[in-house]
Amino acid sequence: MTYCVAMKLDAGLVFASDSRTNAGVDNVSRFEKMRVFHVPGERTIVTLSAGNLSVTQTTLSQIDRQLRTYPLATNINTLRSMQDVAELIGGTLRDTRARDSEYLRQQNIDSSASFIIGGQIAGEAQRLFLVYSEGNFIEASGDAPFFQSGEVKYGKPVIDRVIRAGLPLPDAVKLTLVSFDSTMRSNISVGLPIDLLVLPAGHLAAVQQRRIDESDAYFRDLGLRWNQGLKQAFASIPAPEWSMPQA
Amino acid sequence: MTYCVAMKLDAGLVFASDSRTNAGVDNVSRFEKMRVFHVPGERTIVTLSAGNLSVTQTTLSQIDRQLRTYPLATNINTLRSMQDVAELIGGTLRDTRARDSEYLRQQNIDSSASFIIGGQIAGEAQRLFLVYSEGNFIEASGDAPFFQSGEVKYGKPVIDRVIRAGLPLPDAVKLTLVSFDSTMRSNISVGLPIDLLVLPAGHLAAVQQRRIDESDAYFRDLGLRWNQGLKQAFASIPAPEWSMPQA
Repeated sequence: MTYCVAMKLDAGLVFASDSRTNAGVDNVSRFEKMRVFHVPGERTIVTLSAGNLSVTQTTLSQIDRQLRTYPLATNINTLRSMQDVAELIGGTLRDTRARDSEYLRQQNIDSSASFIIGGQIAGEAQRLFLVYSEGNFIEASGDAPFFQSGEVKYGKPVIDRVIRAGLPLPDAVKLTLVSFDSTMRSNISVGLPIDLLVLPAGHLAAVQQRRIDESDAYFRDLGLRWNQGLKQAFASIPAPEWSMPQA
Repeated sequence: MTYCVAMKLDAGLVFASDSRTNAGVDNVSRFEKMRVFHVPGERTIVTLSAGNLSVTQTTLSQIDRQLRTYPLATNINTLRSMQDVAELIGGTLRDTRARDSEYLRQQNIDSSASFIIGGQIAGEAQRLFLVYSEGNFIEASGDAPFFQSGEVKYGKPVIDRVIRAGLPLPDAVKLTLVSFDSTMRSNISVGLPIDLLVLPAGHLAAVQQRRIDESDAYFRDLGLRWNQGLKQAFASIPAPEWSMPQA
């Protein structure tokens, strides 16, 4: 499985993805699910892939090929709006699935796949989209300023409680990592390393992706503190007085 | 959807289920998912149903009919072991699905269903089983002393962190309700009231089921305190220093 999260806050965008791919528990590999398309000073576009790996890879390879073959034509680096980028990736995903999904279905292989796409193109504000398996998409709004994909449920409650548009970026990074910690503790199919990328609003210069693995002291400390904090929160609730029937 | 949990602790068993059933968001009803079979001083058996409502209802109706028609023959009130009870319910579930599932499948209706079954029969210790949709079952052991069914993921992380065989019953009730609070906050298809039942080990006298609805002061207070405690736990983690790229 996969776990991907992206948040759209007033201060910027935060993206994170795990890097475990598996076809059964005895066939576990690492694949980067985060891709960055960057033109310095002009655009930064981040994609997070979930679902069938061949489908997402083929889709992004098509986007790459278009970019290489016709660098001046319509492609991910020349489109003028993030909305167009979501349409391009959604359309390419449709093409890939139209070609492959029937063959996969014959072997009972699920061809569904999705992309979280976010970033900024000069002249527009930052935007964040979720492209569904069918190629249609939705955009993050003020009420629901985050998208998840893959194994989304374990790590959703804490985001629901904490997220708000005004959250500062360091807190959003912390929230993202707490959500990963909750997911990885309950589901072995989501695993380290985590790829993390922070995009402050209006920042179109080079970005740095951070890879968090077993040796990351901050993530280890965060996991310990969160576990301790949850246990304290649990202990601070009085037990019910009515839980025992009369013997 | 549904959310059911049962825990098997040294001190006893705790059962809880929500009572929302829906076929689409415009067709929401309440159905009790908890059933108790009780012979004072001799046995207490609790079932929690999840999945296709007609399948679980028909299965339990068959168990009831057997009990009414042949009260002295082999039935849920005369079987000598909880293992036999799990086999009886698993077998009856197989019969129900063998009869109905092909008709349901023709309408793309999922006939899968499961039961959590726990309790005690005099002469045995308390036992807890999960009966799968296929009628096979597993028993809770020391390492994994709880079962969930239905919408299980949102409320699993907190149980994973807190549960241990030595947990006192009032704390287990508190943990169960925190797990429900997390689930209901993130998934509208799980709803109040919650049916709750506590069965201390060796206690075969009458049991009391407790129904927790919107007016339950303890559950409301627990939700507020847990929310506050989580936010404090989150606030107590330092934010990372490396989250901002250089502008």
